Amino acid sequence: MMITDSDQARPIPEPTLRRLPTYHHFLKTLEAEGREAVSCSTMGRELNLDPTQIRKDLAMTGITGRPKIGYVVTDLIGAIESFLGWNDIQQAFLAGVGNLGAALLGYQQFNRYGLDIVAAFDTDEAKIGRQVQGKEVMPLSKMADLARRMHVHLGIITTPAEHAQYVADQMVAGGIEAIWNFAPIVLSTPEHIIVQDEDLFSSLAVLSRRLRTRLQAMQ
Amino acid sequence: MMITDSDQARPIPEPTLRRLPTYHHFLKTLEAEGREAVSCSTMGRELNLDPTQIRKDLAMTGITGRPKIGYVVTDLIGAIESFLGWNDIQQAFLAGVGNLGAALLGYQQFNRYGLDIVAAFDTDEAKIGRQVQGKEVMPLSKMADLARRMHVHLGIITTPAEHAQYVADQMVAGGIEAIWNFAPIVLSTPEHIIVQDEDLFSSLAVLSRRLRTRLQAMQ
Repeated sequence: MMITDSDQARPIPEPTLRRLPTYHHFLKTLEAEGREAVSCSTMGRELNLDPTQIRKDLAMTGITGRPKIGYVVTDLIGAIESFLGWNDIQQAFLAGVGNLGAALLGYQQFNRYGLDIVAAFDTDEAKIGRQVQGKEVMPLSKMADLARRMHVHLGIITTPAEHAQYVADQMVAGGIEAIWNFAPIVLSTPEHIIVQDEDLFSSLAVLSRRLRTRLQAMQ
Repeated sequence: MMITDSDQARPIPEPTLRRLPTYHHFLKTLEAEGREAVSCSTMGRELNLDPTQIRKDLAMTGITGRPKIGYVVTDLIGAIESFLGWNDIQQAFLAGVGNLGAALLGYQQFNRYGLDIVAAFDTDEAKIGRQVQGKEVMPLSKMADLARRMHVHLGIITTPAEHAQYVADQMVAGGIEAIWNFAPIVLSTPEHIIVQDEDLFSSLAVLSRRLRTRLQAMQ
């Protein structure tokens, strides 16, 4: 999938976007160690990636390395953060406060990655009004109205599969533009809604098939 | 990525593997409603997918539909389960019992999808010896030895990034062949180890970039 970037009117390949947080994490480690500069070949060696690919990816952020020196670590960190919009915190609602929902609510690192889950919703009376990871759980029936009033544009679905479509409909009704869907179903949404599926069961299917094939070959 | 299937000596595209659990979930819904047969065009309409693609995907499992009738729902469910190895439970170890680790330990559905997380490991003395989601947490130092003795081939890493490489090394030392990595780093492992990264921060990077581009365009 190619993502069109309205800023620069040039498409950004999804694999590049996916690698940028990896570079960022590595660069933060270097920064903590007091390193001032880094080259693509060093990064390539440490991250098991092709240096040419890394150079191309980093060029997307608008920063270029200098011959012999490479990149200034702090500049590169700043360029990635600004490119990915991490300085500009995106507020989100989460629906479905089960184990996975609670885990995501507790991910303090999301804040550093530009995401702030400001409220959680559920239909379970036993959960409503309680605090989970420091966030109050509110009734799902209030979600759409609150999303509209608070101008929240991102929704996270961590409900069981059978409730996910209803929740998605409520999110769309509340003016939410992008859905991060952890439920193992294909959501039906208006064309303009951005949906990103995070289907653990699909990943598991790929992984266990590969492992099974491997184990059979070893026998 | 293409995955070679040693059974049939023909490559299985990863997108096909990723879609099979979606078909399975939909078919289970039909089965619960008492439906006996289903066509690719019905599935395509309900799942927002191209019927020709669905037919191709399902053919991978070795089952073919009949003209006018389509597929027998229970047969198709059985074929997918057997193709993905869900009848043949894979035991796994999980390392890192934080919020995400606990969430995965609590995912009862994994059992239906061929995965049984048999033990959890951590280095935190406060967690060791306690039960989390009904599984006892054991010291990480015992993991490699136990993996070898129990013939566990699958490891799940849900530690913070800074501990993930050490855990991976321990898993490899214990004879684990496949790693499902939820930590946001690129693991360095011997060539033959199957690693599947499940990097939420990378997904978030893609999603927030897309959303930000959308919101800019709407202004």
